[in-house]
Amino acid sequence: MALIVQKYGGTSVGTIERIENVADKVIGWRDRGHQVVVVVSAMSGETDRLIGLAKGITARPEPREMDVLLSTGEQVTIALLCIALEKRGCPARSYTGGQVRILTDNAFNKARIEDVEIAAMRDDLAQGRIIVVAGFQGVDKDGNITTLGRGGSDTTGVALAAALKADECQIYTDVDGVYTTDPRVVPEARRLNRITFEEMLEMASLGSKVLQIRSVEFAGKHNVPLRVLSSFQEGPGTLITFEEALEAEPMEKELISGIAFNRDEAKLTVLGVPDRPGIASSILGPVSAANIEVDMIIQNVSYDGTTDFTFTVHRNDYERALEILQEHTATLGAREVSGDLKIAKLSLVGMGMRSHAGVASKMFGVLAKEGINIRMISTSEIKISVVIDEKYLELGVRALHEAFELDKAA
Amino acid sequence: MALIVQKYGGTSVGTIERIENVADKVIGWRDRGHQVVVVVSAMSGETDRLIGLAKGITARPEPREMDVLLSTGEQVTIALLCIALEKRGCPARSYTGGQVRILTDNAFNKARIEDVEIAAMRDDLAQGRIIVVAGFQGVDKDGNITTLGRGGSDTTGVALAAALKADECQIYTDVDGVYTTDPRVVPEARRLNRITFEEMLEMASLGSKVLQIRSVEFAGKHNVPLRVLSSFQEGPGTLITFEEALEAEPMEKELISGIAFNRDEAKLTVLGVPDRPGIASSILGPVSAANIEVDMIIQNVSYDGTTDFTFTVHRNDYERALEILQEHTATLGAREVSGDLKIAKLSLVGMGMRSHAGVASKMFGVLAKEGINIRMISTSEIKISVVIDEKYLELGVRALHEAFELDKAA
Repeated sequence: MALIVQKYGGTSVGTIERIENVADKVIGWRDRGHQVVVVVSAMSGETDRLIGLAKGITARPEPREMDVLLSTGEQVTIALLCIALEKRGCPARSYTGGQVRILTDNAFNKARIEDVEIAAMRDDLAQGRIIVVAGFQGVDKDGNITTLGRGGSDTTGVALAAALKADECQIYTDVDGVYTTDPRVVPEARRLNRITFEEMLEMASLGSKVLQIRSVEFAGKHNVPLRVLSSFQEGPGTLITFEEALEAEPMEKELISGIAFNRDEAKLTVLGVPDRPGIASSILGPVSAANIEVDMIIQNVSYDGTTDFTFTVHRNDYERALEILQEHTATLGAREVSGDLKIAKLSLVGMGMRSHAGVASKMFGVLAKEGINIRMISTSEIKISVVIDEKYLELGVRALHEAFELDKAA
Repeated sequence: MALIVQKYGGTSVGTIERIENVADKVIGWRDRGHQVVVVVSAMSGETDRLIGLAKGITARPEPREMDVLLSTGEQVTIALLCIALEKRGCPARSYTGGQVRILTDNAFNKARIEDVEIAAMRDDLAQGRIIVVAGFQGVDKDGNITTLGRGGSDTTGVALAAALKADECQIYTDVDGVYTTDPRVVPEARRLNRITFEEMLEMASLGSKVLQIRSVEFAGKHNVPLRVLSSFQEGPGTLITFEEALEAEPMEKELISGIAFNRDEAKLTVLGVPDRPGIASSILGPVSAANIEVDMIIQNVSYDGTTDFTFTVHRNDYERALEILQEHTATLGAREVSGDLKIAKLSLVGMGMRSHAGVASKMFGVLAKEGINIRMISTSEIKISVVIDEKYLELGVRALHEAFELDKAA
């Protein structure tokens, strides 16, 4: 008998029929002898409806009251799912975040979980009940309702799994797992059976948006095995687990796990800037002061006492960042500022590349063979990212997917 | 400076525009120097929408989970009203029933309030905040969400007013007060400035459905002055208060306060039943065993050792009650059972009739003059009820309204 935490997102509980399907699924797990704790999101569309009501009053609703408002979305779902379970003769009990109690800090709209009380849930589980918990919400120490920010239901699932020392936290969504890359770009993309937390973090932050990054970090930190599955079709999904678990099964170990990419970034370059200490912070200081987040940063070796400094920002921030740099060109003593909106970032991710030399050179070779010019390169222990012209993105992803044989199981 | 509790029903908060109007109204009271605690219902239609979701799963949803579901309706309204108040620069704080905490028993769907904690509200009031509380809901001692049953927001308002020792509990609704009778029947019907709790109870239970009976009882028991007003037009409404308060202002004291009536009842008679001890319980025992509520009961003096026994039930229960009586005719030794669906009950209500002889005879005289036959009579300290043929109801109400000069202020 295992203790399983299952999280169902808004699409999975979007209609009464789907809620009834979830009830059947949950009872299936219980009938196989498992204890089940279910975390649910608001029915799809409901959160937007509630936000619409508030925005009908003011563009900047009071944050505390927004959390009171939005938390009703999940509360409706827990009640309906319990009603569906009880109708099937399955004892169930709903819990709001406050009833659990999921204690958070008091940062309304983006609270962080500090503690989860498990005594009441343990009692209910011991009595054979299915527990249904409202995702995305908690209470602060003064009893104010808080929410974890959009997508926070994943985090609730992982936090409950960690607190209850569950055997697995299953995240049900509308995809059946994590893929080697986006199947819309590479039809041969393959579902991964397993992936490490580190790889998943690189994949997620680079654009394969299956899971909320925070929940993956949280799961990794608290050693909670996480599984991504489809609510709508049967299948094992993808297990996100520890490297040690993978090493125990060497056959499962893959050199490269996947290829992530995104088109959300833009590139800015400050040319011919004097190469003196503190120049990087002189350039980036005004940018971050304007609350613009910077992703990749590259500075080349200097020549003639000057250097070129390049970084990427979200495309929405491109115009503003360019203006800021232009305002500072003179102060910085730079020759020129340039930028490019039509870029894309492409990343190879894999634990295996740490111990295998030559991944980078193979990657660059594959891209060169296709005539794709590399604009920027950045590497970490388990990832190599390149910036290329946007028009070459699909070509690059497909060529790398084939060259690294990601369509074939390891 | 007074402490006012105001309750706004579903129609008064039915749209964003109406919620904004309520915010303006509340701020008006605050600007005149009062402390205000607001109780709100769910936006009109919302409770029905939620019930529809549950009924989409099963006709008999689990009661505990229904309360979790339905309590979200008021929670949405408290958040939206606070957002509207804060937008106007008015500090406000929302409270769910559990946050207050309004402690109830654990009778889901029809819980009774046992206690109201006021410390947190007192703090907020002292800091100049408007308090907005979700009506209709509470928590039991184990932290389960409970609801007070439909219309329970009135009860929440009165319970808060009693606990906070408020100067007045104002119930905002879509009528501008309590009338001498239904204006749809008598266009000359007049809004009462004042009425006693006892009169209001007789009026309400007899069909003038302005306020939930329970909330009037509760207000009377806890000495909370209650005022019924319109959310949509200005005016003093009707103050429901103690007899002593009225006696202090003798000019306000009226002989008859109003005429209530209803067409929901049916009449059943057991004819020629032996007049022996215990006969009433032999007749009514099987009826109440079938969970049928009996309203008026009349037994005439006996003649020849037999008597006639008449009572009224709700029209929906008429067929069932008739069947039960017919099954028992032989056992009872009764001659015959008869019944009538087409009756109406009409009642004169007024504290003044206690000390004024002749109200009853005047009433019967007025009805006789119109050719209206009286089928049953029942009296209490402050009310005289008669059952007449349904077709004469409007005629009787109008004739009495005119004869007792209810269209003229006392």
